[in-house]
Amino acid sequence: MDLKWNNAYPGVWTFQTGEPELTLTGVAGRKPSSHLIQLDEMECPENLTCDVFGKYTVIRIPLTDDDRVFGSGLMFQKVITDNQAYHLRVDHFAGMEVGNSHAPVPFVAVSNGIGLLCNTPEKVDFYIRTAHRKEDKERIVEHDRASDGNWSCYNPPYFIEIAVQSSDVEFVLFRGKNIKDCVARFNLYCGGGFIPPKWGFGLWHRTNMTMNENDVQGVVEDYRKHDFPLSVIGLEPGWQSGSYPCTYDWSEKNFPNAEKMIRNFLKDGIRVNLWENPCISERSSVYKKLYPYAGSHLLWCGIVPDYTLPEVRTILKDHHKTTHFAKGVSGYKLDESDGYDKWLWPDHAQFPSGLSGFVFRNLCGLLFQRITYELYHEQDQRTYGLTRSTNAGGVGFPYILYNDRYDFKEFVTGLCSCGFTGALWCPEVRGAKTVSEWIRRFQLLAISPMLLLNAWANYATPWMFPEAEETIRETVKLRESLLPYFYTAFAKYHFEGIPPYRPLFMDYGLFLNANKATLGELDDTANPYQEVQTTDIKDQFIVGESLMAAPLEPETTSRKVIFPPGKWFDFHTGKQVVENGGVIEIFCGEHDPMPLFAPDGAIVPVKVDGSLQVKKFGTKPGKYMLYDDDGETFAYERGEYHWTELLV
Amino acid sequence: MDLKWNNAYPGVWTFQTGEPELTLTGVAGRKPSSHLIQLDEMECPENLTCDVFGKYTVIRIPLTDDDRVFGSGLMFQKVITDNQAYHLRVDHFAGMEVGNSHAPVPFVAVSNGIGLLCNTPEKVDFYIRTAHRKEDKERIVEHDRASDGNWSCYNPPYFIEIAVQSSDVEFVLFRGKNIKDCVARFNLYCGGGFIPPKWGFGLWHRTNMTMNENDVQGVVEDYRKHDFPLSVIGLEPGWQSGSYPCTYDWSEKNFPNAEKMIRNFLKDGIRVNLWENPCISERSSVYKKLYPYAGSHLLWCGIVPDYTLPEVRTILKDHHKTTHFAKGVSGYKLDESDGYDKWLWPDHAQFPSGLSGFVFRNLCGLLFQRITYELYHEQDQRTYGLTRSTNAGGVGFPYILYNDRYDFKEFVTGLCSCGFTGALWCPEVRGAKTVSEWIRRFQLLAISPMLLLNAWANYATPWMFPEAEETIRETVKLRESLLPYFYTAFAKYHFEGIPPYRPLFMDYGLFLNANKATLGELDDTANPYQEVQTTDIKDQFIVGESLMAAPLEPETTSRKVIFPPGKWFDFHTGKQVVENGGVIEIFCGEHDPMPLFAPDGAIVPVKVDGSLQVKKFGTKPGKYMLYDDDGETFAYERGEYHWTELLV
Repeated sequence: MDLKWNNAYPGVWTFQTGEPELTLTGVAGRKPSSHLIQLDEMECPENLTCDVFGKYTVIRIPLTDDDRVFGSGLMFQKVITDNQAYHLRVDHFAGMEVGNSHAPVPFVAVSNGIGLLCNTPEKVDFYIRTAHRKEDKERIVEHDRASDGNWSCYNPPYFIEIAVQSSDVEFVLFRGKNIKDCVARFNLYCGGGFIPPKWGFGLWHRTNMTMNENDVQGVVEDYRKHDFPLSVIGLEPGWQSGSYPCTYDWSEKNFPNAEKMIRNFLKDGIRVNLWENPCISERSSVYKKLYPYAGSHLLWCGIVPDYTLPEVRTILKDHHKTTHFAKGVSGYKLDESDGYDKWLWPDHAQFPSGLSGFVFRNLCGLLFQRITYELYHEQDQRTYGLTRSTNAGGVGFPYILYNDRYDFKEFVTGLCSCGFTGALWCPEVRGAKTVSEWIRRFQLLAISPMLLLNAWANYATPWMFPEAEETIRETVKLRESLLPYFYTAFAKYHFEGIPPYRPLFMDYGLFLNANKATLGELDDTANPYQEVQTTDIKDQFIVGESLMAAPLEPETTSRKVIFPPGKWFDFHTGKQVVENGGVIEIFCGEHDPMPLFAPDGAIVPVKVDGSLQVKKFGTKPGKYMLYDDDGETFAYERGEYHWTELLV
Repeated sequence: MDLKWNNAYPGVWTFQTGEPELTLTGVAGRKPSSHLIQLDEMECPENLTCDVFGKYTVIRIPLTDDDRVFGSGLMFQKVITDNQAYHLRVDHFAGMEVGNSHAPVPFVAVSNGIGLLCNTPEKVDFYIRTAHRKEDKERIVEHDRASDGNWSCYNPPYFIEIAVQSSDVEFVLFRGKNIKDCVARFNLYCGGGFIPPKWGFGLWHRTNMTMNENDVQGVVEDYRKHDFPLSVIGLEPGWQSGSYPCTYDWSEKNFPNAEKMIRNFLKDGIRVNLWENPCISERSSVYKKLYPYAGSHLLWCGIVPDYTLPEVRTILKDHHKTTHFAKGVSGYKLDESDGYDKWLWPDHAQFPSGLSGFVFRNLCGLLFQRITYELYHEQDQRTYGLTRSTNAGGVGFPYILYNDRYDFKEFVTGLCSCGFTGALWCPEVRGAKTVSEWIRRFQLLAISPMLLLNAWANYATPWMFPEAEETIRETVKLRESLLPYFYTAFAKYHFEGIPPYRPLFMDYGLFLNANKATLGELDDTANPYQEVQTTDIKDQFIVGESLMAAPLEPETTSRKVIFPPGKWFDFHTGKQVVENGGVIEIFCGEHDPMPLFAPDGAIVPVKVDGSLQVKKFGTKPGKYMLYDDDGETFAYERGEYHWTELLV
């Protein structure tokens, strides 16, 4: 069919088939950022095609050999997604990457600066360089696998082919000057990133789920004794009068003086964050009100209200306001909207608004965030928390994704790939078998969006390994010192759409020589199709304006680091590490600070003993805009913020 | 809606919603076995419910606490499927069991003897004990997770809830006296199992894909020199004039005298089997004829003809007949109809008959088997081969499933779970890192449906570890000696529907005390929902009438074996192992024969030096019916076979 793109903003076009009832961004309730209109106009890509047939809408984006494709949601095993098929589905990531994700955001970004959002909660499948059509004019050249070295499992012409299981779909097309600019426009279209409250950057501790008021106060006291500056205490299921299913009401038995406890904590600068999940108990004070709006199926015996209904959101917001917010609660951990598949309602469940279980699942985490975000926004207080699932449109919700996996490599790759999703990832720390693991995990965490020790199922503390206590304390201090730098990164996320965590590719492109081999090494089990291994940098990432992190895995004291072209400097010592990019082995003792590198000209503001210092690396002239505001309210939305130009 | 079951056969009922165009059994083209009418009548279960709404047909089977559920296709990690959700999809099993399977057969069997086949190629999701409804009358009892030891992640009432994404579906309900009888009725309804030709039980070797005629003759000669009795030589892609996409034509360059080679092999009793996959090259002699019938998308540059069209099946059958069968070829390996997902056509592909890519994918492997099976059947010659995917209805096709994984445990569990699928599994041997691995893999293979050394990507031979050569030879001889026993097992598969490979549960039920704990051990990463680990015996299986196999893993010389109640005997020594079931540690030296056990009263016919001997175990009176026929033709379908009663 005729693909007529409507120019919505500079470099942003929309197109729809049929009459879509719901869009992801619409459900999130956010408006595009006004910053979009200040960006340069771009020429509309004219080479996409679209077909609607049967239950499908299929859109196709042509690729060249050299293009690389990113996105299709949060990934834990790959950053580059070429030559893969993904069937997007909200699900706990369980080790196999086929589209099941905590953030199956239906957005792809191509290295040529083109991006596409399927702005729909319906089922979306991405076929990236894998779908070839009989009628494609450019004929494929056949080779014989057994005798011809030119045989390859990949064959041009290349396309991204995206199928949506609906004939009513909105697509949003983005074009930036480069892929970073494309992603920025996507984030701005979704409303722009959130800015956390400043207290959100501090140390978080989630307490064991069986703990009562006294136990929790004991934990806080222990932190004081050990001189670890606790910022947020998280209460797990046991704070409620019933959980799994939840009541969202305080347990009179375990937290008889909840408000008093919270107010006392607040006096010491410690916030309280509450765990919740979407299933509501018949013992809850909101059960009866919500029952008529609940879906056909139960979740852990509880009803699941249809959050797409404004009545439901109002009931829940009001309850959260009077029962939690009014008592001083600062935010939430919104658990299990991903459901590990089997725990959730089935795909065919029916919700009162007419949505299927599958579609509601795509929206549940997004709307759970929306309800609580809007409560705090209305009160002009920022909140910060965790969510187990999200989707496109959620970029402005101050929630970080997490899961139950505990694979160090996956956690790092999550921080890389989240840059293409409009979501952020938290590699929380829960425990460790060794001192080395404890330190390495904390080091990664210290430069992640949230510094969270999650002891919901155990009694872990930062000082659980006495021989590592001082190292962990220094690691937490490193994070504190970087607060101005982190905070500015989030301001750029909000105002300019630049994700604070990015894979190297987004800033530096494919700077390594691409592997041009046709055939990979044959292995009947590991590589039966002789796939060529492309270089996918998934264990290093850029955080903020310019710093490059190269986390060390547990039990290691050295690793290979890939440096993009140009000079690079050790963040801690200021010494030059490479003259013009390249791959080198770096060493880092068990108790040494984690490897962080700065490019030539980088400027990094740090807070040392309460005062701001500016670190400058190399000799290249540099400029850095430092952001600041009140750190707690939404006054920045009303223009109350300032940028300071740092010239060194 | 009103669920009115129509009694089709004793213990078999059908019911349909709307007007289904295709059924799995209909597509397979097989008729129910006449043996069905001889079985006892059963009472129709009246407690199932069915609803049709939107695009779904949902059927519900109530369960009690003590029921156990099996099936939902070939599984590699579980045999008992309770508390899981499966989204069935033909796919290479890649390590995560969520419904992706080489045989996603939409059939479940419950320990109470009830089974259900969703006789449809449409999308089927199984929710086994995981879907609870708001309106269920039996109200769930809530417990608090943080404080109440009675909390459980599982909650009655229990159901299997099955959703088919179509409003036109045929369901087939089975009820047997027990679960084995239920599965037998399912297999008979699908036409009854196949009986392989006797040569099929011999040693198979698949040659490296780059080999030409001389190379292949060299391999056969090597087998002769090493005194390994080769039965089948398999040619991989390189036998064709082009492959990936395939021509299905002989390579003039590499196999100029193919027929002469094959005829010479046949003189020595060696059959030739050819590799194929579903994509057809423009260089193939059948390309032009098939082009009009091909689907919208290419597979490895080749067209994929719509096998549901009779014209396509005729063209392919004729080509295979004149080009292969007429030259003496004995069968096929039908590869890659599972596609590793990304290699296959997309779900939204369009096929000329009107089927979507998703539906055709559910049928492709089944029809690929049908085409070649019917060719041989028409010629009154049995064939035997391999297929990469299958579905319900394929029980009578003489093809064994395989994949590219190489995990020993998965391979054993595949042999257990396949008993519930109407398909069989082949744990092929490709290579090994150690002598122990080589021996353990061959030992498992020697009692599997096909003794296949698959050297398509290497040059492995049975004697590749000189120190193991004699052990491997003895292992092959053990299989040869068991031919009468195996052959009879397949006759029972055909005539009575009893699968030749079965998990212990199918014969012995839940003989271990079920774990009645409410809560499993909490682990924030490994078991966050405190799931109770049920005893799932997935590393032992029953082969044939009564023998129990307990394969040893590579690098081990001992293991725990679970014995059902009663006396059990060592197959090799005849010595009693246990008095009345139980769990014991057994030992097996690296070069010892693999552990096989016989229950009290078991009778096992073996062939020793060309003559039949009968082994009797224990003192319990036993009876064994030994089957025989010509071993090569379908004369047995015309009554030319005999059963011999062995009374010892």
